[in-house]
Amino acid sequence: MTASLLIRNVRPNAGPALDILIENGRIARMAKDIAAPAGVAVEDGRGEIAIPGLVEAHTHLDKSLWGQPWYVNEVGPKLLDKIDNERLNKRRLDLDPARQSARQTVQSSLMGSTHIRSHVDVDTDHGMWGVEGVMQTRDGYRDIVDIELVAFPQSGLLRRPGTLELMDQAMKAGCEIVGGLDPCAIDRDPKGHLDAIFGLCQTYGKPLDIHLHEPGEMGAFSMDLIMERTRALGMKGKVTISHAFCLGSPDPALVDPLIAQLAELDIAIMTTAPSRSAAPPVKKLLDAGVRVCSGSDGIRDTWGPYGNADMVERAMFIGLRNNFRRDDEVDLGLDVCTTGGAAVMEIADYGLAEGKAADLVIMPGESLTELVVTRSPKRRVVKRGRVVARDGVSVRTAP
Amino acid sequence: MTASLLIRNVRPNAGPALDILIENGRIARMAKDIAAPAGVAVEDGRGEIAIPGLVEAHTHLDKSLWGQPWYVNEVGPKLLDKIDNERLNKRRLDLDPARQSARQTVQSSLMGSTHIRSHVDVDTDHGMWGVEGVMQTRDGYRDIVDIELVAFPQSGLLRRPGTLELMDQAMKAGCEIVGGLDPCAIDRDPKGHLDAIFGLCQTYGKPLDIHLHEPGEMGAFSMDLIMERTRALGMKGKVTISHAFCLGSPDPALVDPLIAQLAELDIAIMTTAPSRSAAPPVKKLLDAGVRVCSGSDGIRDTWGPYGNADMVERAMFIGLRNNFRRDDEVDLGLDVCTTGGAAVMEIADYGLAEGKAADLVIMPGESLTELVVTRSPKRRVVKRGRVVARDGVSVRTAP
Repeated sequence: MTASLLIRNVRPNAGPALDILIENGRIARMAKDIAAPAGVAVEDGRGEIAIPGLVEAHTHLDKSLWGQPWYVNEVGPKLLDKIDNERLNKRRLDLDPARQSARQTVQSSLMGSTHIRSHVDVDTDHGMWGVEGVMQTRDGYRDIVDIELVAFPQSGLLRRPGTLELMDQAMKAGCEIVGGLDPCAIDRDPKGHLDAIFGLCQTYGKPLDIHLHEPGEMGAFSMDLIMERTRALGMKGKVTISHAFCLGSPDPALVDPLIAQLAELDIAIMTTAPSRSAAPPVKKLLDAGVRVCSGSDGIRDTWGPYGNADMVERAMFIGLRNNFRRDDEVDLGLDVCTTGGAAVMEIADYGLAEGKAADLVIMPGESLTELVVTRSPKRRVVKRGRVVARDGVSVRTAP
Repeated sequence: MTASLLIRNVRPNAGPALDILIENGRIARMAKDIAAPAGVAVEDGRGEIAIPGLVEAHTHLDKSLWGQPWYVNEVGPKLLDKIDNERLNKRRLDLDPARQSARQTVQSSLMGSTHIRSHVDVDTDHGMWGVEGVMQTRDGYRDIVDIELVAFPQSGLLRRPGTLELMDQAMKAGCEIVGGLDPCAIDRDPKGHLDAIFGLCQTYGKPLDIHLHEPGEMGAFSMDLIMERTRALGMKGKVTISHAFCLGSPDPALVDPLIAQLAELDIAIMTTAPSRSAAPPVKKLLDAGVRVCSGSDGIRDTWGPYGNADMVERAMFIGLRNNFRRDDEVDLGLDVCTTGGAAVMEIADYGLAEGKAADLVIMPGESLTELVVTRSPKRRVVKRGRVVARDGVSVRTAP
């Protein structure tokens, strides 16, 4: 669904006020005092700031508890406690992936996201339940958000026989990206895990986005194995490493050579800017030329209660985590949550320029930095030229 | 100013629904189906949760930029860059402490704070300007928030001759607490600095609240000197150490003996739960019996653009920083921002119980954990029995 629209008096990326003429879902002109073509709706920008649509580049649409009765979390401290608790309770908690992904998608759109990359659980207890549910949302909510799916072996790949076959099935079903998870810490067979997921990438000609929580030296070892395969298989520019806590190690002798290789192989990094784990240094990565994106990760799920799908708030977290205080630094966080995500998701026609898709967010503020720290709920979200959300009310409802 | 009020159908600390009868600013009864006394206003609690008033136990009311034109931060990376930039630009930026503290106070009240401890700059460039301005707000806005002042040598005490005399003047003028700052890193004379500020405590019979950003071994050394004086001068229970980054050291051999001494001397710890610095381990401190409070620190000032005075959001930051995921853990963050702050500020008659002052916040949610992660702007704030803020609108306006 595309639309035409004239947005008057809006400030693209906090620059001078302009009008933006959108024709059939694309930005046709950006100039002062554009005459409204006959029959085209006019939106008063009120001198507010327009930014390109926010990019939620890492979340788990299939398993949010959003809209369900409050879930009291009493889960144990280990990573495997959380993984097992979730898999074993998904049906009991009635976490229907189609419904839950629709709910989170509408919430994301309200907050200004126009694109989402979602990892989706693939495991032997639930088979294609998650993939089919999120695909239903992807197809059913295409008018407000573009969604791509990563087939994700959340419970491990080799340690649970049958999962690799299901991953294969998920790729056949139309997942856009191959996922993976902690080849040492979870699967305990880094060579086996990485050979399997890179094999899927080769079979289906698809990119990789692997969760790598492993810290320090162990994470650096896994990252090295990932880079080795990226180079050998000619997958430059087609790999994302999510979390990458090992890059937050305080030892430059460990981190700097990894960053140099990431840049050389054009491997992207996704960080949520976690406040409790070692976190990749965003400015250092950007300065080295590495593509960096961000995401909410799980939103109000059995892992933890946090999250609201607000990628402007996420930009603030990036700033807080990286000690960005100068305006030019704080704005980097917003770049990561917009153009950074678009570069990682290879979104064609992204940005506020003539000829690009008319996906944008209008928010009040004097400067981009003010947008980030204020996180105003007064947002107008435009997807392909149509206002799909206005001050917390969406054109769509979730089940 | 006190008032009488009957709040119907509200859930104190997310427990069963009750009515709360407030008489002359105090909670007179909490029970089911209380008959409304003649002439007493009735507030429908709508089954929402009531928590005791939030306690902002560490901020800087005198120097927020709140309500001013957007300030573009281009300051250098060092702590002294930020200190000097602020002191040298305060007049140019028209940071009138009376006006700015009033603005932040109203914002704090909107978010649910009923008590504030504010550090207030005392330096040779501005003398009593800050103290007088914040005292004006303390006296003028007493109906919505109780404020106490810490005389704070932000630019250093001994390194800038004349400051100690001004600190003495600030205590004479009625500051409730003596402040201090990084005796090694800023004043470069730990013995001299600590002897001077503990001397002020002795002279005026007042407690101490010292900023201690010093990390690792240096911070542990300064903390040790503080504890030595606390013991020698009989100031058990009268000292707060703010920030205390050294307690976030990963070395238990450094941290554990410090925590044991803090507990023994009943020295309180204030943490903002910073996401970029080493941060005190909140649960470990609470388990050891240490009083822990929290605060927003500077809100939108020349140091950085962040902050909105929301102590519910601060509780979330405490949870995120300490990896609190279980509901019982997340709720600890809210405890720190309510009863923890009250214990540190020695607020008499605090809490949701008969006989206590009727300072409370009503917010929608199923559980305390949901309050923390949702941070709803729909808040009703009651100060001494009077509804002083409702859904973002205060009974007071700021200049």
